[in-house]
Amino acid sequence: MNIFLRKKYEEFLFEDQFFGDISTLLDDFNEIFTGYILVKEDCVIAGISHVMDIFKMVDRNFKVLELNFRDGDFVSGGKILLKFEGIGGLILKCERLILNILQRMSGIATNTKKYVEKLEGTGIKLLDTRKTTPGFRYFEKEAVRIGGGYNHRMGLYDAAMIKDNHFRILGKDIKKIEKIRRNIPVTSKIEMECHSMEDVYKSLEIDVDIIMLDNFSPEEVLKAIKIVNGRREIEVSGGITLGNIEKYSLEGVNYISTSKVISEAKWIDISLEID
Amino acid sequence: MNIFLRKKYEEFLFEDQFFGDISTLLDDFNEIFTGYILVKEDCVIAGISHVMDIFKMVDRNFKVLELNFRDGDFVSGGKILLKFEGIGGLILKCERLILNILQRMSGIATNTKKYVEKLEGTGIKLLDTRKTTPGFRYFEKEAVRIGGGYNHRMGLYDAAMIKDNHFRILGKDIKKIEKIRRNIPVTSKIEMECHSMEDVYKSLEIDVDIIMLDNFSPEEVLKAIKIVNGRREIEVSGGITLGNIEKYSLEGVNYISTSKVISEAKWIDISLEID
Amino acid sequence: MNIFLRKKYEEFLFEDQFFGDISTLLDDFNEIFTGYILVKEDCVIAGISHVMDIFKMVDRNFKVLELNFRDGDFVSGGKILLKFEGIGGLILKCERLILNILQRMSGIATNTKKYVEKLEGTGIKLLDTRKTTPGFRYFEKEAVRIGGGYNHRMGLYDAAMIKDNHFRILGKDIKKIEKIRRNIPVTSKIEMECHSMEDVYKSLEIDVDIIMLDNFSPEEVLKAIKIVNGRREIEVSGGITLGNIEKYSLEGVNYISTSKVISEAKWIDISLEID
Amino acid sequence: MNIFLRKKYEEFLFEDQFFGDISTLLDDFNEIFTGYILVKEDCVIAGISHVMDIFKMVDRNFKVLELNFRDGDFVSGGKILLKFEGIGGLILKCERLILNILQRMSGIATNTKKYVEKLEGTGIKLLDTRKTTPGFRYFEKEAVRIGGGYNHRMGLYDAAMIKDNHFRILGKDIKKIEKIRRNIPVTSKIEMECHSMEDVYKSLEIDVDIIMLDNFSPEEVLKAIKIVNGRREIEVSGGITLGNIEKYSLEGVNYISTSKVISEAKWIDISLEID
Amino acid sequence: MNIFLRKKYEEFLFEDQFFGDISTLLDDFNEIFTGYILVKEDCVIAGISHVMDIFKMVDRNFKVLELNFRDGDFVSGGKILLKFEGIGGLILKCERLILNILQRMSGIATNTKKYVEKLEGTGIKLLDTRKTTPGFRYFEKEAVRIGGGYNHRMGLYDAAMIKDNHFRILGKDIKKIEKIRRNIPVTSKIEMECHSMEDVYKSLEIDVDIIMLDNFSPEEVLKAIKIVNGRREIEVSGGITLGNIEKYSLEGVNYISTSKVISEAKWIDISLEID
Amino acid sequence: MNIFLRKKYEEFLFEDQFFGDISTLLDDFNEIFTGYILVKEDCVIAGISHVMDIFKMVDRNFKVLELNFRDGDFVSGGKILLKFEGIGGLILKCERLILNILQRMSGIATNTKKYVEKLEGTGIKLLDTRKTTPGFRYFEKEAVRIGGGYNHRMGLYDAAMIKDNHFRILGKDIKKIEKIRRNIPVTSKIEMECHSMEDVYKSLEIDVDIIMLDNFSPEEVLKAIKIVNGRREIEVSGGITLGNIEKYSLEGVNYISTSKVISEAKWIDISLEID
Repeated sequence: MNIFLRKKYEEFLFEDQFFGDISTLLDDFNEIFTGYILVKEDCVIAGISHVMDIFKMVDRNFKVLELNFRDGDFVSGGKILLKFEGIGGLILKCERLILNILQRMSGIATNTKKYVEKLEGTGIKLLDTRKTTPGFRYFEKEAVRIGGGYNHRMGLYDAAMIKDNHFRILGKDIKKIEKIRRNIPVTSKIEMECHSMEDVYKSLEIDVDIIMLDNFSPEEVLKAIKIVNGRREIEVSGGITLGNIEKYSLEGVNYISTSKVISEAKWIDISLEID
Repeated sequence: MNIFLRKKYEEFLFEDQFFGDISTLLDDFNEIFTGYILVKEDCVIAGISHVMDIFKMVDRNFKVLELNFRDGDFVSGGKILLKFEGIGGLILKCERLILNILQRMSGIATNTKKYVEKLEGTGIKLLDTRKTTPGFRYFEKEAVRIGGGYNHRMGLYDAAMIKDNHFRILGKDIKKIEKIRRNIPVTSKIEMECHSMEDVYKSLEIDVDIIMLDNFSPEEVLKAIKIVNGRREIEVSGGITLGNIEKYSLEGVNYISTSKVISEAKWIDISLEID
Repeated sequence: MNIFLRKKYEEFLFEDQFFGDISTLLDDFNEIFTGYILVKEDCVIAGISHVMDIFKMVDRNFKVLELNFRDGDFVSGGKILLKFEGIGGLILKCERLILNILQRMSGIATNTKKYVEKLEGTGIKLLDTRKTTPGFRYFEKEAVRIGGGYNHRMGLYDAAMIKDNHFRILGKDIKKIEKIRRNIPVTSKIEMECHSMEDVYKSLEIDVDIIMLDNFSPEEVLKAIKIVNGRREIEVSGGITLGNIEKYSLEGVNYISTSKVISEAKWIDISLEID
Repeated sequence: MNIFLRKKYEEFLFEDQFFGDISTLLDDFNEIFTGYILVKEDCVIAGISHVMDIFKMVDRNFKVLELNFRDGDFVSGGKILLKFEGIGGLILKCERLILNILQRMSGIATNTKKYVEKLEGTGIKLLDTRKTTPGFRYFEKEAVRIGGGYNHRMGLYDAAMIKDNHFRILGKDIKKIEKIRRNIPVTSKIEMECHSMEDVYKSLEIDVDIIMLDNFSPEEVLKAIKIVNGRREIEVSGGITLGNIEKYSLEGVNYISTSKVISEAKWIDISLEID
Repeated sequence: MNIFLRKKYEEFLFEDQFFGDISTLLDDFNEIFTGYILVKEDCVIAGISHVMDIFKMVDRNFKVLELNFRDGDFVSGGKILLKFEGIGGLILKCERLILNILQRMSGIATNTKKYVEKLEGTGIKLLDTRKTTPGFRYFEKEAVRIGGGYNHRMGLYDAAMIKDNHFRILGKDIKKIEKIRRNIPVTSKIEMECHSMEDVYKSLEIDVDIIMLDNFSPEEVLKAIKIVNGRREIEVSGGITLGNIEKYSLEGVNYISTSKVISEAKWIDISLEID
Repeated sequence: MNIFLRKKYEEFLFEDQFFGDISTLLDDFNEIFTGYILVKEDCVIAGISHVMDIFKMVDRNFKVLELNFRDGDFVSGGKILLKFEGIGGLILKCERLILNILQRMSGIATNTKKYVEKLEGTGIKLLDTRKTTPGFRYFEKEAVRIGGGYNHRMGLYDAAMIKDNHFRILGKDIKKIEKIRRNIPVTSKIEMECHSMEDVYKSLEIDVDIIMLDNFSPEEVLKAIKIVNGRREIEVSGGITLGNIEKYSLEGVNYISTSKVISEAKWIDISLEID
C-alpha cells in the first residue's frame, strides 16, 4: 500500500472514530463473524481495492471468502460483491467508511461510463476537471478512470494551465506564457484556455501543447479545428452534457472535459450485512 | 482559527498544489489584484467563513472590500458574494479550493432547507447521517446546520448507536446494550435502531435515550409513538424523501433523518473573477 | 489497534528516543531475551492492553509467555504481571514508557476504586473531569473507567457545558443557553453549572440535560434535589473528598465528580526485569 | 516559538477540542473580555511562558494587562498572576489547558524546591529521571529546572546509560561498554549504574563519565567516593526522600536524583476568571 | 509561503533543534542584533528566498537591512549578500540551516551554469535527474533551474518513464507501453529509454512523447535523430561531462540530462556573522 | 524499525511518489521478479540496513536471496551487494530512493575512511560537523560512523557550543557561559570555540568540557595543548584537509573535525538490475 493512500485511509478512519468507537467496547465485538457487501442497484463498481486495503489495515484477521467483481465491472442490483470474515467490532468500525467510498466512487464510475459510451469509436478522450470534493480528489479521479474516462491534470503541480484569470493578470502580453514553460518540468504540458477564435490564433504563435476551447459551439469548434490544423491538441470544455456531447465529437478534437461526471454523480445503494 | 480546521485547509491546499503551482511562477503573479466571487444561481449560501480563513491563511495581503452575505442567507443568482483584493498568484492558488467548498456546501445547505421547510412549525428536527464524503464530513455537516438542519452524531466517538449489525453480533441478549452504557461518557446518548414493533417494546426495557424507527410506515410510526409514550426520544429514518417527509411529521417524533440532504445535493454554480 | 492509539504510542516513543537509543547499538542487544514485569505494591492494575500493543508494535518477535491479570484486577504487591520474550534492545527501548503508563494508570485506577467503593449500592456514578495531564487524557480517563468510575465528557467537542465563565460572557440572558443546543449534535447532552439555588430554578426554565451543583453543601444538594424533582440529571461537584463523599451520596444524585481521582493518584511501584 | 513547542500546544488543544468547542458557537463569545488568573495557594510558579504562547497562538487579540510574576517566583496564595483581555470564546477554549499546565508544572517546581533547599550550599545538583508522564516530559523536566533542579538526560538519544538490564544482556564482559562509546556523539556522556562496591571498582577500569550508586546507604556512598577519588562523577539514586536526602549530601557526590520531584508533586490550585 | 515549503522548513529546523537549542537559553539571546551573510567565493547564488522565509518564520522581528543579490545572480567572493537584524538567539537557531541551504543550492546553481553555458545558442535544454539527496530534492531541482537548467520530471507521479528495468518486467511486448498511457493524466508525457537503434525504431511504432538515448555515442545520436526525424522529442543521457557535452549538442536534440549537475556540485563557502 | 527512521523513509518515498508511480499501473508489475544491486566502483559500503528496511516496508514479499557485505565493508567495483526477489512494481518504486541512499552514504563512508586512516594509531577521533544536507543529517552522520569517524553533536539539543557569534552576543563576560550549564542536562557537554591563545586561557577559568581550537596552526595547537595540560578535551577544527591532517595529529588532541568528510564526498556508482 502506498504512503499516500495509507495516510488517506488513516485520515478517513480518524475522522469517523477520533479516539475510538464507543458502541463496540464489549468483548462480544472481539469475535470473528462473516458478512457480505450487497450492491442494491445497477452500477459500474469502483473502489474495491480501497475496501480491501482498509479492511486489511484495520483487521489482520480479515479474510476474503468470495470476491465476485473487479473495479470497472458492471454489477446488476441485488448481486453480492464480497463475502468476508473478520473481527466483528473492527468490521463495524470500517463499515460506514468503506460504504461511503464504494457508493461515491461507483456513482462516479457509473456516471462517467454514460459519457464515455457517447464517445465510443471516436478516439476522443473524456476528461474530468479539478472540481472535486476537497480531500477526496484522488478517489474521485480514479473513479473517472475506472468508468472509462481519462484524468486531466491532478493538480496545480503536474501541468500548467493559462486560464481567463491568468490572462487578466498577465495583461495582453501573450509571450509571457512562454516564460511559464521555463519553470515547469519538460515532461509536463502547458494548456491555454481559449474564449474566442482570436485566442485560438494567438495560441499558434506560442509554445503551448493543448488548447482548450471554452464554451464554444460545435460550429466554432469545427472552425477552430481547421485553424489549428493538428498543430495543437484540442480540448473542448464548458457546458458539455449527456445531451449535447455527441455534437462535440468532431474529428480533430482530442479531449472533451466536464466536471459533471463527478459533481452530478449519484450515490449507488450498497450495504454491508453481518450474517 | 482552530487546529482542526487549519489542518483541513492545509490538507486541501496540499492536495491541489503538492510542491507548488507551476502556472504562476512569473513575477506578474506577485502583484495585488482585485476580484470578486459571483453566485450564479439561487441558493442558501454556505462556507463563507472557510473562504475567508483560507484566503487569509494563504495571502496576508488579502482584504475584504465588500461582503454582502452571511452563511445561511438566501442569495439569488447573479449576486456578488464578495469583493476582495490580494496577491494574484496566491488568489489563483486558492480559487479552485474555495469554489469547491462554496459550491458543495451551498448545495447541501440549499437542499437541506427544502426538507427543513417541510417541517416548519412541527418542532421536529431534521438530521443528517454519517453517509458523507470521506475527509469532508465536518464541512458537509456544518452545511446541514447552516441549511437549518441539526447534526446527528459526528462519528463513532461522540454517541453510541446499536444498529442491525450490532444486534447480530450481540445475539438476542438485549441486556448487553446496557453494558455499553458503562463505557461511554455520561454526557453522550445511546440510540437503538428498531426494525419492528417488537424492537420498540424491547427498547423500553433497557436504558437507551433515543430509538430510531428504521423504515417504518407513517402508520407504524404512529403506533410506536403511542407505545413509547414519551419515555424515549424518537427518530424516524429510512426512505425519507421530500415527497413523503410530511407524512412522517407526526406529533411525538423528535427527529427525522436522511442522508439525502447531503448525498443528493447538487453543486451550486459559483465563480471567481479577477478584475 | 486504532489510529488514535497508534499515533499516541508513536509520539510517546518518539519523545523518549527521538532518532534512537544510543545505549543499545551493539549486536548483543539484537538477541532474544526473556523477562518479566513485577508489581511491587497492592493496586488495581491498569494499562495492560497498551503495554501489549506497544511491545508488539516495536518488536515483532515479542511473545507473551504468561499473563496473570487483566485490566481492573486487584494485584497484590510482589506478583508477576507478565512474563515475555523479545529482542533485548527493543524491550529496553519500551521499558520506561510501558512502566510510566502502567504506574500512572494503575495509580489512577487504584485511587478511583477507593471513591467508587464509597458509592457502592447507591447507583451514583463517580465521574472524572477535564483536569488531566495534557496529551495523556485518554489514558487517564480510561484508568478511571478501569477503576470503576465513569467518564464525564472527553473534551469540548462531545458535550456542552455552561459554566461560570460562560455565564459572565452571556450576561444574564439564560435563554441564550438554548441557542447553544441549536449547534450541538442531538446525541450530545448540555450541562449547566449551578452556584446557587437560584441557578437551579433557572435551569428548570430551559432545555438542559444535566445540572451540576458546584460546591453545594449536602444540605443544599438535598434541597436542590427536591426542587428539580427528577426533571434534570444531577451532578455534584467541587470539594469532594474520600472523607465527605458519603455525605453527598443522596438519593436523586446521578453523578459525583472529582478531579482528585486523577490529580491525587500516586504512581504504583512496578518494574521490568530482563532475566 | 519553536516547532517542538508549537506542535505540543497544537496536540494539547486538539486533544481537548478535536473539531471544535460546541459550547461557544454563539456570537456572544466573539466579543473581547477581560479576565485574570488567580493563584489560590502558595507555590513556586511554573509554566507562564507556555500560557502566554498558547493564548497568543489561539487568540491574536490576546493582550497582557498585568503580569506579576516570572517562572520560578514564589507566589503566595490569593495573588493574581495575570490580568488579560481576549476574545471570550477563544480564552475559554484554552482555559482548561493552560490551567492544567500551570497547576501541574507549578506543583512540580514547588516540590523540587523543597529538595533543592535541602542541598543548599553543598554544590550537589538535584536531578530528575525519565519517569515522567508520557507526552508531557518536556514540561515536567522544565518545571524541575524552574524549581532549582537540573535535568538528567532528556531521553534515550542524548546520553548513554548502562543499567541493570543492560548488564544482563551484555553478560559479564564489561569491556563491551566501551564499544557503546564508539556509537555515541563525543559531546554526550556515558553513565554506569552500580549496584555494589564491585561495580564501582569495575567502573574505574572502563571509560565512563558518571557512575550512579543505586540504592546505596550513606555509608556505602562514602566508601564509594573514596574508591572513585574524583576519577568519575558520582550520582546517588534510589530511595531518596525529603527525610533522608541530607544524609546523602556528602562531599564528592555530584548529583542526587529522584523521580519523586515529579511523581509525587501535587497540583497547585489555580483558576481563571472572566470578569 | 506554501504548505509544502513550510513543512520542509519545519522539518529541517526540527532535525537540528528537536526540543530546543540548549546553548541559547540566557536572556542575553533575546535581544535584537544586526548581522550579515558573507559570500566567500565566486558563485551563482541560490536559495535566498528560502533564507528569507525561514528567518521570517522563526523570528517575527527579522528585518532585511540590505539585500544585494537575487537568486541566479553571479556573486563574486567577498561580497555581502544580506544585512539584517533580528533576535540573537533566533538568528543563531537558523544559522546552520540557512547556510546549509545556501551553500548547497549555490553550489548546484554554479555547477549547472557551467553546463548550460556549453549549450548556449543551441536551444538544447540541460536537464537534471531524480538522483537527488532524499528529502531535499525540491531544493536541488530548484537550484538547477536557478543555474539555467530545466527540470526533468519531479518524481514518479508527474510523468511516465519506461526504462530498462520496466522493459524486463514487461517482456518484449512493446504495445503494453501504450496501456500505460491509459492511466496517466493527459497533461503528462511518456518517455521511453532507448539502448539501441532497434529501440529507437520501436519507439516510433508506439505513442510516446520523448525518447531518451541512453549512453549513445555522438555518432549514434546523430543516426537516431535522422531516424526519428522530428516525430519524437529526443533526450540524450548517460556519461555526459563538461568535457563531452558539446559533442552531443547536435541539432535535433531537445534535451541533455545529467545527474552530475547535482551530485558533483561543491558547497560554496558562505558564512553568517553577528556584528 | 524505529519511529524516526520509518517517518524518514515514508517522507523520502512520498517525495518521489506523492500519490503514486504512474509508470507501473499495469498488472505486469504485480508479479514477483528477481534482481540484484551492483556496486560499480571501489568503496566503503554504507546504508545497507536502510535498503533492507525500505524494501521490507514497501513490499511484504521482498526476500533477500544473497547478501554479500555489511555496512563498513570495503567493496571492490563490480561486486554484487545483494540479490533479492520482490514485486516488480514495488521494487521499481524504491529503486531510485535506495540507490540515492546507498550512493550518497557510501560516498561519505569512503571519504571518511581516508581521513580516519591518516589518524590511525594516534587515538585521535575524526569528527563530523552540523554542515549536512537539510533533512538527511541522520544518514550522513551515520555514514561518518560507518567510515570510522565519530559524531560531533547531532544538533542544537544534545550539547552546548559557544561559538564566535555567541560571544558577540554575550559580550566579554565569559562567566555567562557557566550560566548556560545551568540549563543543559548534566549528561551533555559544553564546548567553547577558541580563536586565540587568550581564549584558551579564558576557557580554563570556566567550567567547559571541550575547547575547540578554530583555525589554529599546528604550532599554535601545540602551544594550546601545553597551556591546557589535560584540563580540557581538545578539538582541532577549521581548514583540515587530507593533506594537512597529519600535522595536526598531535599528542593531546582528542578530536579533529571537518565538514569535508560529508560535503566533499562523491556519489558512488551503484545500480539496481531486474533480471
